[in-house]
Formats: sequence, structure tokens, C-alpha cells
Amino acid sequence: MRASQLYAPTLRETPAEAEVISHQLMLRAGFIRKAAGGIYNYLPLAWRVLKKIEKIVREEMDAKGGQELLMPIVLPAEMWQETGRWDVYGDEMFRLKDRHGRDFCLGPTHEEMVTTLIRDEVRSYRQLPLMLYQIQNKFRDEIRPRFGLMRGREFIMKDLYSFDRDEAGLDESYNKMYDAYSRVFTRCGLTFRPVEADPGAIGGKGSHEFMVIADSGEAAIVYCGGCDYAANVEKAELHPLEAPAEAPAELVLKDTPGTKTIAAVAEFLGLPAAKTVKTLAYLTDKGLVFALVRGDHDVNEIKVQNAVGAIFLQMADEASLAAAGTSPGFMGPIGVKDVIVVADATVMKMYNTVVGANEPDRHYVNVNPGRDFKPAVVADIRLIREGDPCPRCGEPVKTARGIEVGQVFKLYTKYSKALNATYLDENGQEQTIVMGTYGIGVTRTMAAAIEQNNDANGIIWPAAIAPFHAAVIPVNNADQGQRELAEKLYAELAAAGVEVVLDDRDERAGVKFKDADLIGYPLKVTIGAKAVSENKVEVKTRRGGEVHFFPAEEAVEGIKALLAKL
Amino acid sequence: MRASQLYAPTLRETPAEAEVISHQLMLRAGFIRKAAGGIYNYLPLAWRVLKKIEKIVREEMDAKGGQELLMPIVLPAEMWQETGRWDVYGDEMFRLKDRHGRDFCLGPTHEEMVTTLIRDEVRSYRQLPLMLYQIQNKFRDEIRPRFGLMRGREFIMKDLYSFDRDEAGLDESYNKMYDAYSRVFTRCGLTFRPVEADPGAIGGKGSHEFMVIADSGEAAIVYCGGCDYAANVEKAELHPLEAPAEAPAELVLKDTPGTKTIAAVAEFLGLPAAKTVKTLAYLTDKGLVFALVRGDHDVNEIKVQNAVGAIFLQMADEASLAAAGTSPGFMGPIGVKDVIVVADATVMKMYNTVVGANEPDRHYVNVNPGRDFKPAVVADIRLIREGDPCPRCGEPVKTARGIEVGQVFKLYTKYSKALNATYLDENGQEQTIVMGTYGIGVTRTMAAAIEQNNDANGIIWPAAIAPFHAAVIPVNNADQGQRELAEKLYAELAAAGVEVVLDDRDERAGVKFKDADLIGYPLKVTIGAKAVSENKVEVKTRRGGEVHFFPAEEAVEGIKALLAKL
Repeated sequence: MRASQLYAPTLRETPAEAEVISHQLMLRAGFIRKAAGGIYNYLPLAWRVLKKIEKIVREEMDAKGGQELLMPIVLPAEMWQETGRWDVYGDEMFRLKDRHGRDFCLGPTHEEMVTTLIRDEVRSYRQLPLMLYQIQNKFRDEIRPRFGLMRGREFIMKDLYSFDRDEAGLDESYNKMYDAYSRVFTRCGLTFRPVEADPGAIGGKGSHEFMVIADSGEAAIVYCGGCDYAANVEKAELHPLEAPAEAPAELVLKDTPGTKTIAAVAEFLGLPAAKTVKTLAYLTDKGLVFALVRGDHDVNEIKVQNAVGAIFLQMADEASLAAAGTSPGFMGPIGVKDVIVVADATVMKMYNTVVGANEPDRHYVNVNPGRDFKPAVVADIRLIREGDPCPRCGEPVKTARGIEVGQVFKLYTKYSKALNATYLDENGQEQTIVMGTYGIGVTRTMAAAIEQNNDANGIIWPAAIAPFHAAVIPVNNADQGQRELAEKLYAELAAAGVEVVLDDRDERAGVKFKDADLIGYPLKVTIGAKAVSENKVEVKTRRGGEVHFFPAEEAVEGIKALLAKL
Repeated sequence: MRASQLYAPTLRETPAEAEVISHQLMLRAGFIRKAAGGIYNYLPLAWRVLKKIEKIVREEMDAKGGQELLMPIVLPAEMWQETGRWDVYGDEMFRLKDRHGRDFCLGPTHEEMVTTLIRDEVRSYRQLPLMLYQIQNKFRDEIRPRFGLMRGREFIMKDLYSFDRDEAGLDESYNKMYDAYSRVFTRCGLTFRPVEADPGAIGGKGSHEFMVIADSGEAAIVYCGGCDYAANVEKAELHPLEAPAEAPAELVLKDTPGTKTIAAVAEFLGLPAAKTVKTLAYLTDKGLVFALVRGDHDVNEIKVQNAVGAIFLQMADEASLAAAGTSPGFMGPIGVKDVIVVADATVMKMYNTVVGANEPDRHYVNVNPGRDFKPAVVADIRLIREGDPCPRCGEPVKTARGIEVGQVFKLYTKYSKALNATYLDENGQEQTIVMGTYGIGVTRTMAAAIEQNNDANGIIWPAAIAPFHAAVIPVNNADQGQRELAEKLYAELAAAGVEVVLDDRDERAGVKFKDADLIGYPLKVTIGAKAVSENKVEVKTRRGGEVHFFPAEEAVEGIKALLAKL
């Protein structure tokens, strides 16, 4: 490809709208252009990257026995009503009516469609296991689409669905996909980590997220240096911490003026925060919930929600707290009515602690959980943090930030039951099909690759997913010797299967070098005066900036060898 | 691929809903399943065919300098309002609102998006010409989606847009695409014909349709045996026919009881139909139109619409005719008021003809056009028919039926003007970009291939787009020799790059043969008793049913040689 013909409009300035680096660089380097909030055009450079990611995904899905098909984008409402998700999805689902007034949505995911598709035609155990997948535009009407391709409203996803006879079969399909996903992200040249995840709204009982590690990642993860444990912080299990035994002292109601925070009450009482108990109040569909954790700990809201079996959960407002007879900043579990008290298991191990007295400027001290209050639920509801003991091996965990690019879920029979997808087993007995669902965000993987691989000058593509492998840049277009050598090398590289751009534009060398760095070609091949006079072609790696010189007649082999190592 | 694992649920019965052969066969052979009216799931076999067509399209677009990108499916209303098509498209456009109440549509085509995309970044003549394309799901809410993939509501299209400096540049881009399209359909193995077409609602001034020839085609085309003229009947030009000269006789108003049709009045008057004039009435946005053609000719409504410059045109109802003071069956151009009379040029050459008198049971005879009535418009408004003289060379034309699988359009500046897409020429003058638009229906091409290539047993795929090249069928699975030979040949063929299915299912040989014919593999490789005992592997071509025998050790080469000829 000649740069003079390539449609890659670069920008000199960073667009103000772009908050994250991948968004900035994809706009500046001419990879994407916005059509509407969260909806983008993928220009030729981006499309080349996306096709490479898709090809890797396709090969790995096929290698595990996945069969590719294509389901529709416009999906009829009925199947979503059968599973109840027509209501559950709320405003996040794009909905429309056809000319006859029938309800449809734009598929945010395809469990309903694929289950409906196979339920009438998979009848026998001999047709299982089955894995079907597609690579397709998906649609979610995010409240605040942002971060470019990281959270868009129209995006490309690979979604695979597995159908098995039983849980043992599901485990096998799940492991195949876990392996395939590891291979996909490895082949894409990304540093990633599979972590245990909360299955969330999609349902089911087992799930891993595949996280590309990047400081700009939205998700917090913990991992253990001592063993291979890794989890989304939302999911990370914690064992209760023991406190040194003390003799329980007598409960005392104490004035603690102006101590609305844990820090304030701890200081006022001359105690460490770890000797106090923090109470947070949530409104849920089950009623008002008080969540109790040790004063220096944080609440994991997802765990609270799971602990009480709530469908929704949000911070309680002051009016609800007043109606419940308590006071913000002084909440506690003692004497409250019509409140579901959920205590972290660590709280139950504490002695002579401190809780709010549900009236302004007062706390109870010498509180002994179990003696002075009895929670409705005791559970692990704490948010893990750096240094907490690993739930597997006890070593201190580390934290990192990641970008979720893939997720594998065990659905079990959630959708097959709702949609009545059954088969006849060897004994002629009707059984419910056991399902799994496995997604890879293709556009998100491209954005995550950039978040992980960039510097002040632009993108640093892993060679496997770079839009082109190399740029050949004649320093001075007006110099016939340079121009001819550049053309020759360009033709030879293309013939040797190297994906190469010849920067034949009438631009200053500085502009061409800057654009090459911005776009992020793995190799920059410079044809300057020395290349001609001394037969030394300079090849510079984008990552690391290593410089190599080759005689022109050895340049193609040299470049191929460098690429093979990238 | 092993047939036991391939997800291709075949049906023994032809589904009642399927009216055309491609729809019937794709349902029966397990290629597609309906999700909603005009919306289909493409199962693995269909998806393999579609990917092959896409690959051919992509290679030919790239060869002409096309650059692939991907634009969104969900498009904001504003750009469609700028060109006026937000209203013009009417109910055929799927519309939706996002959670903030903003208007969007599902792209039925992308002239607005692509022009908006490039208008801010193509600034200089040096950036032109430019050709951008995508392969993508498109959406049109057809009133009556039917014929399976022939007229769907969600379908796959390749759409390319060309941007040029001037009309000479557009001509060049148009010719490149015309050539690319010819190559695409040739490579797909289809019999097709490019025909001159009416540009229709999309606008512009020059257009060809690429028609796959099939008796079941929706479109009627004419072509000349004497020269290379070919056109959609809607578009086919006609020169006026001369009638033998006669002396004009005196106009007479005559009773012609009960003669509501041309046949009746001609018989009543003892004249050939070619001596009468037929009048048809249409309601248009310009008013009531009378269209006049020779009694034995038919009206081409598109030509009438173009002749009066109407945006819509439909048959007039009885109430409108009554209000205009005429009578159905007895309409004519003499004495009518507030009616736009449009006469076919051939009518103006007639002598002493017959027209309705606008009152029941009466006609005028000895009518001489020009003397007895003066049409508002004289134009070519006749529908061409078999045997009419070719407008180029005068030889009689032939007719055929075709399926439109591609169309190329010269748009000129219709969209670039509306959306203000300009560039600066060599002299620094602002000029409007000149555009073309070029579509291929990918899913429609698959359906058309089946309409053209089938027999009573099923599909006969052209090898280039067949889902697999060959099926290896052991006649008796229980026979170890047959099973082993089949497995060996299957492995060897796959290793040699032949796309092969091994029918390892526990089915009777008859079922396997029937399924292979139905699915339409170009080659059927039968491993029966003879194959083992006499070392004779039978290979049968789906098309033509030729039978070849190869020793097992030569079968791979023999099969490859056969495939190369298909």
C-alpha cells in the first residue's frame, strides 16, 4: 500500500473529547471516526487490525470444534419475553418496532436466539456436544458511552455458545474455551490474566474474565504471587480475620460529638480504625440493608447483593434512613427494626468494638457481635485489597488494573430451561441441555492492545495484529536514488509476504517518521543518503527502538527475521 | 469436517412457507432458519458459502484500489435529514430512538455516512480518487419480505463508494467497478448479464444492474442477439414505430356497446389491436395522468413517471376517474380537462386510430393524433417485449428473467452537494466531489446461485462457492475396510487442501447420498464394496452426474483434477 493512497487521515492535535489513550491515538492516527456517541467508523487501518484479531479468534474457535454461523442483529421480542430479559435489560437494550408494530431489539447478546435456533433440531444425545459461534456487531445503549471503543454502543463481539449433555460435558467445553481464550490473547501478543469473575446479570455459576493488564484498565483485579489465584476484586473471596481474644466488657452508650466518620470516631475514642465497625446502608428490593465491615475495611456491594439475594441495590438516601429511625454517620446494628443486618464474617470475630447508636453524636462502645446484636446474614462481604491474604495459599495478594476483553460463563440450564431446550438421552429420557456462553470483545481487544502498548509518540502494535508490518520511508522523495531504492525494497517486501506501506507522500521526512510512530508500524525502514551511498538500509523497531543496518540485497531477509522475533 | 459433527439439520419435507426453490432448498438442506419475517440465521453451511463470496468480492474490490472499512449499522438521523432521505425512505427504513430520545435508523445504504465521514478530511485533489467499501448487514423493512434470502429485511451487502474530481474520473471508477463486478460473478461460477438499468430512488444518471439469469428471476430483461445491448425492461429504450401512411379521415364518435377492453373494441370495429390506442390513468403528485400507447403495446410505468417528473405514481381509482369526467374502459385523450396526457412516440405516428370517448360505450374512430388531440408530453413510454427491434442495431431483441445481484450507479454530485463534500483543485478552486455507488447483494448472490443451479435432488453448487468441495461416503459404516479407506481418503484430501466432509453418520447409504445431493457438494466420493475389493473409488460429479473411478492411491490427484475443471 502506498501512503499517498491509504485512507488514514491523521490529526496533529489530540481531540478534546478523548479521555483515554487508546481513544486519543485511534483518532489521531486515523483508525476511527465517531458517527454518534459510542458509535464509530472503523477506517482501513483499524479494519485491518480487527480482521487480524477476528482471524486469530476464528482459528482458535475452529480448533476447539466451534462452528461459525451468523445470527440476526434484529431479534424478535418474543424469545426475550420467554426468558424475562425483555424487561430485565431495561434501557440498555436498543428497541424498535417494524412497520407492522411488532417489537424487536438489536441483539446485545444471543443466548435467546441460539437456544431457540437449536431447540427444535437438537433432539438426541448423539448431537451433543455442540459449539456454535459468530463474530458480529452487538448493541448496548450505555448510559454514558465513553473511552472510545472501550465502552461503545455498537461494537464487534465473538460469541460462542456450548451445548452439552450434562455438567461434566459443560466443564469440558468450558475448559476448551478457557484454553482457546488463553491462546487467542497470547497470539495477539497481549499481556493478560484470566481471573475469577462474578457472573453478573447474565446468570450462571462459574465464570472467568480475561483481563489485559493496563494501568488505565477499568477493572481492579487481585492476584497472588505465591500461587496462581487471580480474581476480579468484585469476586475475590476472603476468609475471616481473627482478632486477638479479649474479655467482653459491658456495653456502653457514649457521647461522641461530631464523629461522623470512622477516622473521627476512632480518633475521639483513641482506638485504631480496625477496632471499630463501619455500617453502610443500602436500599434493595428486599428492603433496607445495613452492611457491616471492620472500620478499616471496604464493602463489596456485589457480595452484599448476593448475600441478601437482591436484584437491585443502591446507597440509601437520607429520607429512607430517617424513616428507619437512624442517623447518617451514626448508624449501627443495635436496636434497629425492619432492617436486614448483614455482617462481614470478620466483624463477628471482633471484641469490644464500636458501632453507631442510630442517633446523632452517639456510639455504642464495648460492642460484642453475637452478644449485642445478631445479624440476619453473616457472609464474606468485604472488598479485597493489596496485602490481604490469598484465599488459596495465604500469601499477601497484589492488585493490578485490567481491561476485560473476554469472559467465559457456565450458564448451566438457565436459558435451556426457560426456552425448553431438551434432548433424549441414551435411555430415551428427556434431559435439559446444559449451556455455556463465551464472549470476546473484538473492538475492545484492539483498544486494550493500544492501552497496553503505547508511548508518547503513538501506538506500539504487537506484530501479530499490526495493520501493516513495516513502513518504508524515503527520506528525500526528490532524490532519485532514494526513491528508486525505496520502490524496489517495497516491491520485494510485498512479494515476500511482508505487509508494507511505502510512504511516497510529498511530506518532510520528519512528518513521515512521526506518522509512522503514531500509527505504530512494528518496523520503520529508512532509505536515506547512507542507504544509497553506503548500501546501509536502516531498520528500527518501534518497540525498544533497536536500530539495525542491512545491505539492500539482504534487507528483505533481515526484516523477515526481525518480524519473526517480534 | 465429519458429518456427525456438522450442524446442518436437514428436513425431509419442503416447508410450506417457502415459495421459491432457493428458499426451499436452503431450508431443507440446513443452510438457513428463519428468526422472523425476512430475517434469517445463516447456519454453518450457508456461512461457508457467504464467506467464499465475500472473499471473492473483497479480492476484486482490493484489486481495483478499493479500501475496506466498516461503518456503523446504527446511524444518526441528522445526516439523512440533510439529504432529505429521512422522509423519502418512509416505512422501508427501520427507525429507533436511543435512551435519550435521539433518532437513529438502521442503515439501508451508506451514502450519507460515507460522505459525512470523508467530507471533513478529503480536502485536496491529491486525495482523489478514493474508493471505500464495506461488507455488512443492511436493513430494509420490506412490506412483504418473501422468497427467503431474495427479499429479506436484514441482508448482507457489499457497498463501495467512489469519490472523484470530475465526471471523467467517475467514468473511470465506474468502469473499474463494472469490470470488477463482471469478475466477481464470473469467479462465483454464475451465468449473468450486466444490463442498463433505471437508477431509481437512489438517484443519479447512469446505472447497470448485474443479473444472474434464472427463470425464477423477479426482473425481466431484454438483450440483443445482434449486438451487446442488454437492459432491464424498465429501462430499455424504444424508437417509435412508423405506421403505413393513410389519408386522415373525418373524426367520428361511435357507439361501441360493452367494449371495455382493447380486444373487445378491436373485434367490434373489425380492426387489429395495433390500429387502436390504449389509455391508462395514473394518480401522481403532478396530477392525473393519461398514458397512451398503441393498443397492442404495454405501458412502462417508470418511463411515464420519468416523463412527467413525478415522485409517485399509482393506478387511478374509479372515484378519481369519475371526478375527471371519464369512464373506465372508455378513456381517451380527446376533450379531457385537468389531465396530463402523455403519448408514446409511436402513438403520434398512427393514422385513423381509435380512442375512448370518456363516456360509457362510446369511442372516437378515425382519430389522428396531433390533429384531434395534442398530448402535453410525447415520449418513449412503452414497455419493450420480445421481438421488438433493438434500439442499437435494430435486430429483434430476446427476453429473459434475471435476479439482480449487483448494481453500479453514477451518483454525480447528488449527495456531495447535499452534504457539502468539496475539495480544492490544482488552482485552489473549491469543487464538488463526484461520486459513484456500487452494491453487491452477498446473501442474494447465494440465493441466486441456487436459483440458477439446482435440480430435483437439490443444490448444484459452482465449485468456487460450494460450502465443501466433496463428500466422502462409506456405503456401509459397519464394514471395517470401507470405514478405514474412507477415513484414510478423508485425511489425505484434507491434507491436500480439498474441503471435504466425511459422512460418518450411522445412516443408511441412501440417506447419505440424498443428503449429499441435497446439500450439493460438487463431488460425491463413494467408498463401497468395490472400492475395497477392486481398489476402485467412485467419484461422481453433482453437475452432469459423470462417474469416474480411481485406484485409492490416485484418488486425491483425480479429485483435485476434477475440481480444477469444475
